[in-house]
Amino acid sequence: MATLFLNHPTFSPTTPSSKIPTSLNPTSPLLLFSKSSKLSYNKSIKCSLSQTRPEYIPNKIPDPNYVRIFDTTLRDGEQSPGATMTSKEKLDVARQLSKLGVDIIEAGFPASSNDDLEAVKIIAREVGNAIDDDGHVPVICGLARCNKADIDAAWEAVKYAKRPRIHTFIATSEIHLKYKLRKSREEVIAIAKEMVGYARSLGCNDVEFSPEDAGRSDREYLYEVLEAVIKAGATTLNIPDTVGYTLPTEFGKLIADIKLNTPGIDNVIISTHCQNDLGLSTANTIAGAYAGARQLEVTINGIGERAGNASLEEVVMAIRCRGKELLGGLHTGVNTRHIVMASKMVAEFTGLHVQPHKAIVGANAFAHESGIHQDGMLKFKGTYEIMSPEDIGLSRSNDSGIVLGKLSGRHALRSRLLELGYELDGKDLDDVFWRFKAVAEKKKHLSDGDIEALISDEIFQPQAIWSLGDLQVTCGTLGLSTATVKLIGIDGVEHIACSVGTGPVDAAYKAIDQIVKVSVSLLEYSMNSVTEGIDAIASTRVVIVGENSHTSTHAISGQTINRTFSGTGAGMDIVVSSVRAYVSALNKMFGFSRTSKVSPESSEVTA
Amino acid sequence: MATLFLNHPTFSPTTPSSKIPTSLNPTSPLLLFSKSSKLSYNKSIKCSLSQTRPEYIPNKIPDPNYVRIFDTTLRDGEQSPGATMTSKEKLDVARQLSKLGVDIIEAGFPASSNDDLEAVKIIAREVGNAIDDDGHVPVICGLARCNKADIDAAWEAVKYAKRPRIHTFIATSEIHLKYKLRKSREEVIAIAKEMVGYARSLGCNDVEFSPEDAGRSDREYLYEVLEAVIKAGATTLNIPDTVGYTLPTEFGKLIADIKLNTPGIDNVIISTHCQNDLGLSTANTIAGAYAGARQLEVTINGIGERAGNASLEEVVMAIRCRGKELLGGLHTGVNTRHIVMASKMVAEFTGLHVQPHKAIVGANAFAHESGIHQDGMLKFKGTYEIMSPEDIGLSRSNDSGIVLGKLSGRHALRSRLLELGYELDGKDLDDVFWRFKAVAEKKKHLSDGDIEALISDEIFQPQAIWSLGDLQVTCGTLGLSTATVKLIGIDGVEHIACSVGTGPVDAAYKAIDQIVKVSVSLLEYSMNSVTEGIDAIASTRVVIVGENSHTSTHAISGQTINRTFSGTGAGMDIVVSSVRAYVSALNKMFGFSRTSKVSPESSEVTA
Repeated sequence: MATLFLNHPTFSPTTPSSKIPTSLNPTSPLLLFSKSSKLSYNKSIKCSLSQTRPEYIPNKIPDPNYVRIFDTTLRDGEQSPGATMTSKEKLDVARQLSKLGVDIIEAGFPASSNDDLEAVKIIAREVGNAIDDDGHVPVICGLARCNKADIDAAWEAVKYAKRPRIHTFIATSEIHLKYKLRKSREEVIAIAKEMVGYARSLGCNDVEFSPEDAGRSDREYLYEVLEAVIKAGATTLNIPDTVGYTLPTEFGKLIADIKLNTPGIDNVIISTHCQNDLGLSTANTIAGAYAGARQLEVTINGIGERAGNASLEEVVMAIRCRGKELLGGLHTGVNTRHIVMASKMVAEFTGLHVQPHKAIVGANAFAHESGIHQDGMLKFKGTYEIMSPEDIGLSRSNDSGIVLGKLSGRHALRSRLLELGYELDGKDLDDVFWRFKAVAEKKKHLSDGDIEALISDEIFQPQAIWSLGDLQVTCGTLGLSTATVKLIGIDGVEHIACSVGTGPVDAAYKAIDQIVKVSVSLLEYSMNSVTEGIDAIASTRVVIVGENSHTSTHAISGQTINRTFSGTGAGMDIVVSSVRAYVSALNKMFGFSRTSKVSPESSEVTA
Repeated sequence: MATLFLNHPTFSPTTPSSKIPTSLNPTSPLLLFSKSSKLSYNKSIKCSLSQTRPEYIPNKIPDPNYVRIFDTTLRDGEQSPGATMTSKEKLDVARQLSKLGVDIIEAGFPASSNDDLEAVKIIAREVGNAIDDDGHVPVICGLARCNKADIDAAWEAVKYAKRPRIHTFIATSEIHLKYKLRKSREEVIAIAKEMVGYARSLGCNDVEFSPEDAGRSDREYLYEVLEAVIKAGATTLNIPDTVGYTLPTEFGKLIADIKLNTPGIDNVIISTHCQNDLGLSTANTIAGAYAGARQLEVTINGIGERAGNASLEEVVMAIRCRGKELLGGLHTGVNTRHIVMASKMVAEFTGLHVQPHKAIVGANAFAHESGIHQDGMLKFKGTYEIMSPEDIGLSRSNDSGIVLGKLSGRHALRSRLLELGYELDGKDLDDVFWRFKAVAEKKKHLSDGDIEALISDEIFQPQAIWSLGDLQVTCGTLGLSTATVKLIGIDGVEHIACSVGTGPVDAAYKAIDQIVKVSVSLLEYSMNSVTEGIDAIASTRVVIVGENSHTSTHAISGQTINRTFSGTGAGMDIVVSSVRAYVSALNKMFGFSRTSKVSPESSEVTA
């Protein structure tokens, strides 16, 4: 295995160094890695697929069988309840998407809030200018409703990218015209034309237009709208199945009809955007591609509002496994070996976990208990190009046979980390080594999962405004649960508080509330053991919402929504990991406020 | 809403009364409900759909558009890693499937272990004889490989049902013939014919045959095999997409080809069984139905090995929403209002949770943050028959406006429970009321989620071999985690032990191990808060495996596998809920051993 889980994308020379002093105390919860870590990745497994990527021209693709992958995890996916990501997390995801080789990254909806605008701008500047060894750089796209303010905000955010795109949309179904827009058909066509033209006039030569609720729009009217925006300069036309109720044959026919009946359609790219309300989004997306769509809008893990969107991994793997044989040779530029890491990262940042039987990326997807699989017979690639775990970047635990324990030295840990994709040296290695030793003292054998949990407990943390000093708890069925907490502020000052509660976590959280003095509500709380065994490391996740703070505008409805913040913590003591998660979520919330104050011209990541 | 979440299927007059004394101590963890509870369900919401169900004749359906739903949650679903259910849980699921109105319940693989045989037999006797008000009773089906011992075991288990079915299978693809069976094509045809005939000769007039890996079998040979088994008396032919790699058009064509080219096919029912490896199982299943299949094999929540199977809720809702318009009028007999309860029950029993963005049954599936949904505009059923949460039995929390708190009386609790589907009186109501008051003392407002967690902490428990007396814990970052546990044995004797550990849960579990003196490994540990708020009730789940015990045979591979056991616990103190979950899993494991010793003639549920 040796080369899977390459470098973790959080580590990058462009991320500013943390100013928080790290500690050698192995139980210190928020040891932040210095971002100067010399982490690099092994280039030996670069997938040859990306060599087939044709030149990028907004309105046409030189290779007729090449299908562009448009990832909207950061826009449509992040709109899911509770899935708010910080700017830094969004940047990390964008870097991973770039590594995956997606063609277009929809980075956000810049008009929704100042934070969103800043996040898209940072991604445009950094990821939108990071050309890889094959000359590929993703398009960075910003969403805008059909009005000048939204389009201005989108352009302001994406214009720093090498390949900027504005994506604007307006509803075209009767039901939306009548009840939502209260406009006539002619008025909507006029607005769409004008706004596409306006986006072009700003200097953006890559403009995508979506007729919202296309599936329920009058066909003839839909062709008219599309013809008008093509004339106005749109280069991609996206056809959303907004309510997620179409069947594959029906959606394929919609795409085929548009291709057949829209004047000028051959000069632009047709795109699909399928919701998953009936569990058919992957099939609909593939039917769309087969009918002529050459851009597919997807999200990692299929996240999104309600039942989510078509999932990148399913669509890409279906095309990879069956494209040659059944889909006329369709192919994508995605380097599938980065799928697992992207899936883990998005699940971690959004808190939208993946069910064990999720196709491709579920925990059981490659767990072959049944003998017909175990005996390797299916490796005989007779009829199909069967997936292997390695194709999606899934490592088998401890393939190397190295088992780490308390007697393992710095060198053994360093080797194992290297195999897992983390290249650490000097003080950074020391910090991890001390934390590792503290755990190894208590636990006999440390698996890859344990080690990754420890590393990710560090990596996935926001900047520490508050960090946990000590914690002492008494609980059980007999008495009153009591917790005493010591927090250390960003100024280094220690604060101690104690509280009783209905349980140990309630008591500890109340003690923390006394110290940080903000009013938050806990929306979700969950915990999983990382590995097998009673002495496993537990990973806790909480989602909080601040009262009267941290709002943004919803893309589709235009409503103001409260942002929610997630935090994670790992540890062998579930009360300690719960407290770490809460402190992490609070830090993320405080970091979000701070980001809002960044000047529009700054390209610094401050959270 | 008022009438959703009808009666909980665990409560039934046929389940024997518990012999465990209940306690009025509100913190007692394992208050078992007396099974004599007068729980009934409100009949007012019976869905009219079931009236359209045609008469059951094994090899034909009088209504050409009626599609049979064959649920294999208890066989294929239960084969998922860690999804082992006890006999009692299987019976509960079977009752819920019957209430859902599925046509066929595949209850298990009787030859795999004595426990499986007993579970199928109990389901055949009870659920297979419980005719509902509309005259419907589900077929009870048992799986068997193509050999006499398996078929004998299956018949021994299902013969007690009003409508028994034997489902036998053998592989027909070249790759399987060559590497797995090591038999010629002619030998396999001879075995299939002989074994279908043998099943009929036992008196079973409803025999299903599956050619395993049909999708990769030589077409002409496949038609030959199918023709042979039809002649031998098979009444349903099931076409599995064993490796889950077909695309919808391809799978539809396979079904259409079989329908066109197999002599005698018009006298039997064609069935689909689609795996989900590429996320296409729902689309493939619907394509199969459109091409002529009239039985669809599905599981609740889409569980199953690897990426699982087509999910009942997606397939049924797609047919319900689009069958009339796009699928030539196809319809099923499923009463969709029981979907949510079935989904929750299966998730709880198998531990295979459902991701928030799972279609139909995910937590966010009906969470409409976006304004176009919130404003109710989509209720205008212009083009599609849009689903409403009520269609699948999803209640909106606190629709009634009743908020329970510590001042709420017995009457208010009883009313709320009635609305949630639980009819409790007398001592049972008293027990729940005292536990409710204990929580209400600590928590301001109790939501429906809190109340259901308390009820399900009781309901979903196995028979108590051990129950938790008291627990006392000290932990934190400063000292050694220490737990003292008091367990009460089935004989009423109290045992106390203490232990240190790497955290409070580790310490408590080690103390329990000292008392129960068995060797088990913890495979999984997870926890979720049931409701919002820092003082939420947490629900913990663990999966354990006993060393050198509790094995059964895998259906497809024939290998011996170790059974795993899950346990759940709820409480406001996460350490207490963790301990309850562990005790519950241990009780389930001990109960499983006891079940094995049931005499074959007994129809009693003993676990």
